[in-house]
Amino acid sequence: MPEQSPLVPAEGDPFGPHNLPYGVFSTADEPDRRRLGVRIGDQVLDAGAAAHALGSPYAALLDRPGLNPLMAAGRTAWRDVRRALTAWVTVPAHRADIEPLLHPLGSVTLHLPYEVADYVDFYASEHHAANVGRIFRPGGAALTPNWKHLPIGYHGRAGTVVVSGTDVVRPSGQRKSPADPVPVFGPSTKLDIEAEVAFVVGAPSARGSAVGSAAFRDHVFGLSLLNDWSARDIQAWEYVPLGPFLGKSFATSVSAWVTPLEALDAARVAPPARTEPLLPYLDDADDEEPGGFDLRITVSLNGQVISEPPFSGMYWTAAQQLAHMTVNGASLRTGDLFASGTVSGPERDQRGSLLELTWNGTEPLELPDGKRTFLEDGDEVTLTAWAPGPDGTRVGLGEVAGRVVSG
Amino acid sequence: MPEQSPLVPAEGDPFGPHNLPYGVFSTADEPDRRRLGVRIGDQVLDAGAAAHALGSPYAALLDRPGLNPLMAAGRTAWRDVRRALTAWVTVPAHRADIEPLLHPLGSVTLHLPYEVADYVDFYASEHHAANVGRIFRPGGAALTPNWKHLPIGYHGRAGTVVVSGTDVVRPSGQRKSPADPVPVFGPSTKLDIEAEVAFVVGAPSARGSAVGSAAFRDHVFGLSLLNDWSARDIQAWEYVPLGPFLGKSFATSVSAWVTPLEALDAARVAPPARTEPLLPYLDDADDEEPGGFDLRITVSLNGQVISEPPFSGMYWTAAQQLAHMTVNGASLRTGDLFASGTVSGPERDQRGSLLELTWNGTEPLELPDGKRTFLEDGDEVTLTAWAPGPDGTRVGLGEVAGRVVSG
Repeated sequence: MPEQSPLVPAEGDPFGPHNLPYGVFSTADEPDRRRLGVRIGDQVLDAGAAAHALGSPYAALLDRPGLNPLMAAGRTAWRDVRRALTAWVTVPAHRADIEPLLHPLGSVTLHLPYEVADYVDFYASEHHAANVGRIFRPGGAALTPNWKHLPIGYHGRAGTVVVSGTDVVRPSGQRKSPADPVPVFGPSTKLDIEAEVAFVVGAPSARGSAVGSAAFRDHVFGLSLLNDWSARDIQAWEYVPLGPFLGKSFATSVSAWVTPLEALDAARVAPPARTEPLLPYLDDADDEEPGGFDLRITVSLNGQVISEPPFSGMYWTAAQQLAHMTVNGASLRTGDLFASGTVSGPERDQRGSLLELTWNGTEPLELPDGKRTFLEDGDEVTLTAWAPGPDGTRVGLGEVAGRVVSG
Repeated sequence: MPEQSPLVPAEGDPFGPHNLPYGVFSTADEPDRRRLGVRIGDQVLDAGAAAHALGSPYAALLDRPGLNPLMAAGRTAWRDVRRALTAWVTVPAHRADIEPLLHPLGSVTLHLPYEVADYVDFYASEHHAANVGRIFRPGGAALTPNWKHLPIGYHGRAGTVVVSGTDVVRPSGQRKSPADPVPVFGPSTKLDIEAEVAFVVGAPSARGSAVGSAAFRDHVFGLSLLNDWSARDIQAWEYVPLGPFLGKSFATSVSAWVTPLEALDAARVAPPARTEPLLPYLDDADDEEPGGFDLRITVSLNGQVISEPPFSGMYWTAAQQLAHMTVNGASLRTGDLFASGTVSGPERDQRGSLLELTWNGTEPLELPDGKRTFLEDGDEVTLTAWAPGPDGTRVGLGEVAGRVVSG
């Protein structure tokens, strides 16, 4: 009766054995003991305990309170550990050992699964960048002159990256509308989301050396969803000339689950055709594998779907971002996180921010509980996503949920 | 014969017992063993060994491979440890115990003394900001409209902060002059320095809470010099609209020595008069102690002094920067580093960057080895500084030196 084992999720479960994302959990009876876990269906396998139970040589990487040691171990280790985990959860002979090491997902507390080193946020959706340009520079060119030549990015605050489920305190700060003679201070009145996909660096690189896009799989361990909470009023007043700072630095939410790149092999797609020639270090026309990922994102506000941004249409790929980020010799560290920027598609209901969905508040969304321009206290935003997996399966990404609380 | 003890530096030594900066060193016979050290004159005291030798309760903070545990311990511990160290190096009865634990400065290798958490770079000199405005926006306003209302800052790359003495590889990247139809790629042709002062956060703060400027001494452990190496050509093409990225992220050099705030009590000075009213969280008019520091910086290029920027004239103080950085609820972590931005005074020979000193390359410096606009391979840049100390002494800051090597 294999269907009755918690190791055999229902047909079509996006967290079946073809997925196996990594996370860090603790249990109610040992709240201070963080453990590396692997999600299978609605269960979390204690990966370290499983390694010990089966006498695995990977116990040193898996019996850990965080993902960093496994992430640092490199691509061969990532592949071998994934193979081992796949066997542990699928080979019936292991059931007696493995089943007692499962914890129902609803019974555990999930933590930020890795220590974030540097956090970089890109701006890789042409639709998003053009929408922002039209909103803030009406009459001007929608894209800045550099946009099609390099993946624009900037460093964000690593110390305020939080795990899904963490409340987000509405930030206060300075804002100044054109009508204000001087800036005013108070809680942000334009609190927004940005639906993004984040890539997590595993293997580091040396300072002074560039990492080419072909080395993407050697350095990037996996990906997750990310909500780049943004206070548009604070951002608008502060960001010239050195970029966003306090408008973004109060909180950035990521999934509790990191999906290994290998789980998304069936989801690789070609990015959109490039409309400007690219310098060689960014030119991906002859790459062995396509640089895009066919991730279908859903953005929900208080349970109501408000957008379905398609990640497949991103102009700049994560491999190009990696190549760009290091072309000046900047090194990579285990735990570096780089995010795509807001994912917006060409359609109105594919926009990944309220800024775009409500056209800077001028076209409110109609929700069951009333009109909405930007976020109100108590609002809960949830990002989910899936991608095509092998043999017609779906690969689910861990959700990113967060609720706004007053400051 | 107290003068013959290595614990008694020569009269006027800026690293006398009134200074006592912290660093991390290793010795030639134990190159992998990093130890916390305190500088006295041209000697480095093994602080952990001293704590053990004298039976100090601070051994747990001092017998460490880095400064983070002491930095995290908070203001009372910082004061008490400093008092103990002062006694150890000044009370003659301790000499027999302490002298054997000294290492000549020239015999040790110095390391980055703390793990950098987040790195933020401000833009706090009005003279610098106005010079940059005049160079890049001739005919327009020298300062952006927000400049006098908030200390503009952005996040930099923490992973490429390096200790003084580390070579800096010339970065490659995209640049595009107005005459170029498309961007070109290659080694930067406008490699520059920025002479700055960096503040190191010791005690952390909670996400969602602001840290007021009055809590500056509760959170900031000390300061050092910083050279924010900058590739002006890369920066100019990339920085609109999200700020500097690859133009800065290849390397940022800091002193090997962190000067405790207490050592600079005699150097506190009032900042320049504010010409615009400030919002309450930034208003320092009634602060108990003045927010400025009278640090006199010297910038040398291949041994030739090229500038002497005065830190006392910075418009925005570090306490204001701390208040601004956290007013949106962003948390602080032990090891957060925030830098002043380029220190430039009103005079030509007080400018802290080659961009300003050579007016973007149009007015070359005359050096013994020829004219210089931006940095050439092999150039060595050294920042030094001192401040008034107690009783007519001088407090030296650890130098920041770095040599440019070809990429």
